[in-house]
Amino acid sequence: MPNSHTQQLSDDTITSFDHLIINANIATFSAQYGFGIDTNEHADNTPYGQLENAAIGIKDGKIAWVGAHEQIATHLLHYQENQVTDADGHWITPGLIDCHTHIVYGGNRSNEFEARLHGSSYQDIAAQGGGIVATVSATRAASIEALFIQSEKRLLALIKEGVTSIEIKSGYGLDLDTERKMLTVARQLGKKHNIHVSTTYLAAHALPPEYKARADDYIKQVCTWLPILHAEGLVDAVDGFCENIAFSSEQIRRVFEVARSLDLPVKLHAEQLSDIGGSALVAEYQGLSSDHLEHLSEDDIKKMAASNTVAVLLPGAFYTLRDTKLPPIDALRKHNVPMAISTDCNPGTSPLTSLLLAMNMGCTLFYLTPEEVLAGATIHAAQALGLTQKGRIEVGCDADLALWDITRPADLAYQIGLNPSAGIMSQGQWRKTV
Amino acid sequence: MPNSHTQQLSDDTITSFDHLIINANIATFSAQYGFGIDTNEHADNTPYGQLENAAIGIKDGKIAWVGAHEQIATHLLHYQENQVTDADGHWITPGLIDCHTHIVYGGNRSNEFEARLHGSSYQDIAAQGGGIVATVSATRAASIEALFIQSEKRLLALIKEGVTSIEIKSGYGLDLDTERKMLTVARQLGKKHNIHVSTTYLAAHALPPEYKARADDYIKQVCTWLPILHAEGLVDAVDGFCENIAFSSEQIRRVFEVARSLDLPVKLHAEQLSDIGGSALVAEYQGLSSDHLEHLSEDDIKKMAASNTVAVLLPGAFYTLRDTKLPPIDALRKHNVPMAISTDCNPGTSPLTSLLLAMNMGCTLFYLTPEEVLAGATIHAAQALGLTQKGRIEVGCDADLALWDITRPADLAYQIGLNPSAGIMSQGQWRKTV
Ligand SMILES: [Zn+2]
Ligand SMILES: [Zn+2]
Repeated sequence: MPNSHTQQLSDDTITSFDHLIINANIATFSAQYGFGIDTNEHADNTPYGQLENAAIGIKDGKIAWVGAHEQIATHLLHYQENQVTDADGHWITPGLIDCHTHIVYGGNRSNEFEARLHGSSYQDIAAQGGGIVATVSATRAASIEALFIQSEKRLLALIKEGVTSIEIKSGYGLDLDTERKMLTVARQLGKKHNIHVSTTYLAAHALPPEYKARADDYIKQVCTWLPILHAEGLVDAVDGFCENIAFSSEQIRRVFEVARSLDLPVKLHAEQLSDIGGSALVAEYQGLSSDHLEHLSEDDIKKMAASNTVAVLLPGAFYTLRDTKLPPIDALRKHNVPMAISTDCNPGTSPLTSLLLAMNMGCTLFYLTPEEVLAGATIHAAQALGLTQKGRIEVGCDADLALWDITRPADLAYQIGLNPSAGIMSQGQWRKTV
Repeated sequence: MPNSHTQQLSDDTITSFDHLIINANIATFSAQYGFGIDTNEHADNTPYGQLENAAIGIKDGKIAWVGAHEQIATHLLHYQENQVTDADGHWITPGLIDCHTHIVYGGNRSNEFEARLHGSSYQDIAAQGGGIVATVSATRAASIEALFIQSEKRLLALIKEGVTSIEIKSGYGLDLDTERKMLTVARQLGKKHNIHVSTTYLAAHALPPEYKARADDYIKQVCTWLPILHAEGLVDAVDGFCENIAFSSEQIRRVFEVARSLDLPVKLHAEQLSDIGGSALVAEYQGLSSDHLEHLSEDDIKKMAASNTVAVLLPGAFYTLRDTKLPPIDALRKHNVPMAISTDCNPGTSPLTSLLLAMNMGCTLFYLTPEEVLAGATIHAAQALGLTQKGRIEVGCDADLALWDITRPADLAYQIGLNPSAGIMSQGQWRKTV
């Protein structure tokens, strides 16, 4: 551990902590402890920014001190049992951050999943009112309570696997009331479970049936609704689906203009199926992230690098759609574009509620390293949400932590379907996993 | 529900049940309720052999009655609260059966997983004592207690997702004492958790380093150890790895001969990487199952059909190895070979402890239907283990059940990483999931 980053501890300082975590191995993902985002030059880096035999002091929901276990061991007698967590040599990472989800929705689409495997085409299913339209209908029809209950199950699955922050998008309402309902449920979920929720306005997700062949008219509505929902405190960022089967970059630009006027950050579903300039547009608006990216060009990667835009990779959708076109990982590495990993949890193309599995898929399907996928679910996911005080373990950051029963950080990406979570701390409060 | 299968209930009969499950939708996988194994002729079949608004009576650990909820409703007053489970409209399936696992092993191989993603070749890793040899060393070195504790975590992950029966193989000992240790742990796991464990002797898994270039000598030992371990009650079936990188079909035949002399059923890892006649050999010995099968020929499928051998498909290994050669699903369907699905949980090629995820992979990677993968984890998995009283819900079968918080059976294959288990019943005893 670099001594320069170890504070000298007085008795006064140490007795002021609300909580201590001792006997921990810590994957900090902090540059202060040697975590390097330049994946081309690992020479001076400490993988995972890791500290062994370390301890963490927590005060007022923040990380107040990080240092060697021995430094704190003699002070333990100042503490009551419930103020100390003995990690017993287990690993601690930043609380995981799922930075791209659609977990709030009504119904499910297992009937379509089944029908397709019995030979129905996407066209057959669409003709029967299936696809995204089915989810929009079910979401519109659901009471806010029913929507909460169904979405809560998905959130709990994520929390049980170490997630302390999650982004939740609207986009299955496609009318003002239902977009509001979705975003309201998203806020309620965060409040009830003491989890950070970043809400994203995604009315530009699909064309609702009532606007058939009137996409420009619909975009006008989308632009009108945004200031209303923002004024209600429901919107943290603005997103769209930029694709031939959805909206053009010119249409998305109109929505981004409104976002800019409200000082709201933007992000985009881009280059999943084709390249129609989505990521270039995001970069132009200094967007937080561009997401999917299988068809992203190196030119646009350079623009993302210049605008410090995160590349959010979504292997769950790649897997479910049996995609074969890989996102341009090597070029993203070459240009030092930070890569995040997320579940993209949604009822159609990625009914996935395990961020650990998304990480495994990132390694297995996208050939990312365990360090890259873990960074993608911590520090880079935080950046994709504009959360400057989350996603890494260093003094001053939020005390959002995940405790793991593992022997090394790579276990989190290697194991498939085994949940080694021993609990999370969210803003200084423990939630132990059974 | 076919009336012919609904028993008339006297008060005497009904009050004799130890436990009642009411208000259930049941996927029976029983031919008595219309589940058909002939996948080419669905006309007269009831998908999943399903019964809606049904009830189950349990006595002495067996299913004693299955029928309509109304038939039993008036008798409920005979029962105490703890003798009745109200499924509240949820689904019940047979307890899931994971019919091909290597969950008992020492160490793990996340270090190799990570090294390969940083560019190390399999050769590099083997040169450093990695690969299966690393697991053999760690398993030999582990105390029986340590091996139990580490393996128990994997078993619990499966149990939490509805598994009531599991096959566990030896094969990381490759010496008499360690093979015995593995099989002993397997038996202990079943006993402690009230789960059915079928043990399989897999000493013919790999050539141990001390027998380098002396495969025939090693096979001689394998044949010598088998009767010893069988006499100790540790062996329910015999398996091998028939592949160019492992053992020839002639070498496996010698092991199968010993199995036959002991009246033990056989199964085989066959046609995973090439076709050297493994499944044909299994069929010749009327084996329970042939497993992996990516390179299986139609000729050998016919032999499997004739010998009533189950095809055990292992999509977790296919996924982890990034395989592209699909097993011959259509030909297996055409010849009515029952297909099972399993995790193949092992530290190298499938570190997977979710049978539900294996089912999703069966659909997504192998294009199986949800009904096929669920049958593959129930009735066909039972057949792959020779368990004639498990894997389906009908009178006389073991009361091994799984209760699910889902809206339709296909949800179990569609959802990824969401655990909808509400508990299992094993031999008539509930184990509710939190
Ligand atoms: Zn999305
Ligand atoms: Zn195997």
